[in-house]
Amino acid sequence: MADPWQECMDYAVILARQAGEMIREALKNEMDVMIKSSPADLVTVTDQKVEKMLMSSIKEKYPCHSFIGEESVAAGEKTVFTEQPTWVIDPIDGTTNFVHRFPFVAVSIGFLVNKEMEFGIVYSCVEDKMYTGRKGKGAFCNGQKLQVSQQEDITKSLLVTELGSSRKPETLRIVLSNMEKLCSVPVHGIRSVGTAAVNMCLVATGGADAYYEMGIHCWDMAGAGIIVTEAGGVLMDVTGEIMPPQSMQGSLLCGSLQNQTLADGDSGVASATT
Amino acid sequence: MADPWQECMDYAVILARQAGEMIREALKNEMDVMIKSSPADLVTVTDQKVEKMLMSSIKEKYPCHSFIGEESVAAGEKTVFTEQPTWVIDPIDGTTNFVHRFPFVAVSIGFLVNKEMEFGIVYSCVEDKMYTGRKGKGAFCNGQKLQVSQQEDITKSLLVTELGSSRKPETLRIVLSNMEKLCSVPVHGIRSVGTAAVNMCLVATGGADAYYEMGIHCWDMAGAGIIVTEAGGVLMDVTGEIMPPQSMQGSLLCGSLQNQTLADGDSGVASATT
Ligand SMILES: [Mg+2]
Ligand SMILES: [Mg+2]
Repeated sequence: MADPWQECMDYAVILARQAGEMIREALKNEMDVMIKSSPADLVTVTDQKVEKMLMSSIKEKYPCHSFIGEESVAAGEKTVFTEQPTWVIDPIDGTTNFVHRFPFVAVSIGFLVNKEMEFGIVYSCVEDKMYTGRKGKGAFCNGQKLQVSQQEDITKSLLVTELGSSRKPETLRIVLSNMEKLCSVPVHGIRSVGTAAVNMCLVATGGADAYYEMGIHCWDMAGAGIIVTEAGGVLMDVTGEIMPPQSMQGSLLCGSLQNQTLADGDSGVASATT
Repeated sequence: MADPWQECMDYAVILARQAGEMIREALKNEMDVMIKSSPADLVTVTDQKVEKMLMSSIKEKYPCHSFIGEESVAAGEKTVFTEQPTWVIDPIDGTTNFVHRFPFVAVSIGFLVNKEMEFGIVYSCVEDKMYTGRKGKGAFCNGQKLQVSQQEDITKSLLVTELGSSRKPETLRIVLSNMEKLCSVPVHGIRSVGTAAVNMCLVATGGADAYYEMGIHCWDMAGAGIIVTEAGGVLMDVTGEIMPPQSMQGSLLCGSLQNQTLADGDSGVASATT
């Protein structure tokens, strides 16, 4: 039987490239930066324009599908996961990077049916890296098959995380105390490129062994989640529970299967409510 | 008058590309990883092989020049800056990234005469980005001229730093407390790609507004230093003193001229002895 969602996936790749082109163009011009939840949670007109382009293009082709988009939710729409084919869109993951022209900015598109991830696209548009994952068919970057690192020893691991955009002292303290605990394990190092989607894709390539972050939203991980799992990794809550796609928010941990030690309590990583 | 050091600089670019090729080849194979000062301070046979190739190639062509190389110093040679033309070499900046195949690994070559930086080369070999800076002639990445951001407002700045390789609890605490203070300023964000040289080059591009790190060595900054200054930035000690090249070690801060606020004491950044 033909793959029922291949056409949607092909279309998503085309749209992600178009979105990436819009973002690269916008990087050449002046930007108006607006603030969302904190002085470090930014949004620009480009985030909104790219989301509108993606939404309207997909709606025109698939009028019966459902949508969840970061900027639509910010504008008041609800995040509701139904059984319907659902597109989960982050037009720009890494808006702070975008504002600064720090060269990691991603378009993220996830697609779920019956609350199951079917495919995910993350286009890191400045690097021109197109990451894709299709359920049961593997994950790829620019056509090259991806495989998580399979590192079993946390003391030999390289982690990715972010300080996040919350500037509440209590939250910052937990975030930094987690870093301190992990450094003391010790781990080899901790990196932050400034986008959840790209961080997760780096785990999928095996370049990093695990990614964790508190206060993540479904649109941050809907595209990259299946790229990680199709590369052989797992998505977990920081308690170590495998994360079902419809609860894609809160605290996320992803890595190679053997890296569950990070969630075992050994590392003492605590969760912050942001 | 013709530029007396242009020939050396052209040769350095050729050698950096050759070194990058060796590194990319090595990334395809298994690695033997050895430990230096801490479980997070790593070295491989490739670091040593690349340094030997660079040193012997330059020595053959310029037998009267002096040399400082990370792995030669690790093997017992002294770091002495004289008035002689001096090549300062970090064969792999980002060895932990290299070991993990995290895609930011740089070859760094700095060249000083009379203790003044004449040119610097940083080749980020996985990204294939060749950064160069020549005294009085500007800084470039793959031929494109670089310019620091000129951001004047620290609350709108994006910083780069590293947790570093020390795993001493006191050092870690200072490093993380600096991050906490900076986040609370607040800054827009903090990024870490895992190599001092690439972090500094990102400041030169304007993608980040400032870089700071404690416990840096001269070979970490000899290549990128002049790339930052030629892009319009400054190199300072964290006390705010302009850093003379012959004291290229300790705590480093670099950024756009206006960003001296980071060293003003406003941010409360403390220095750690590592
Ligand atoms: Mg976004
Ligand atoms: Mg090195």
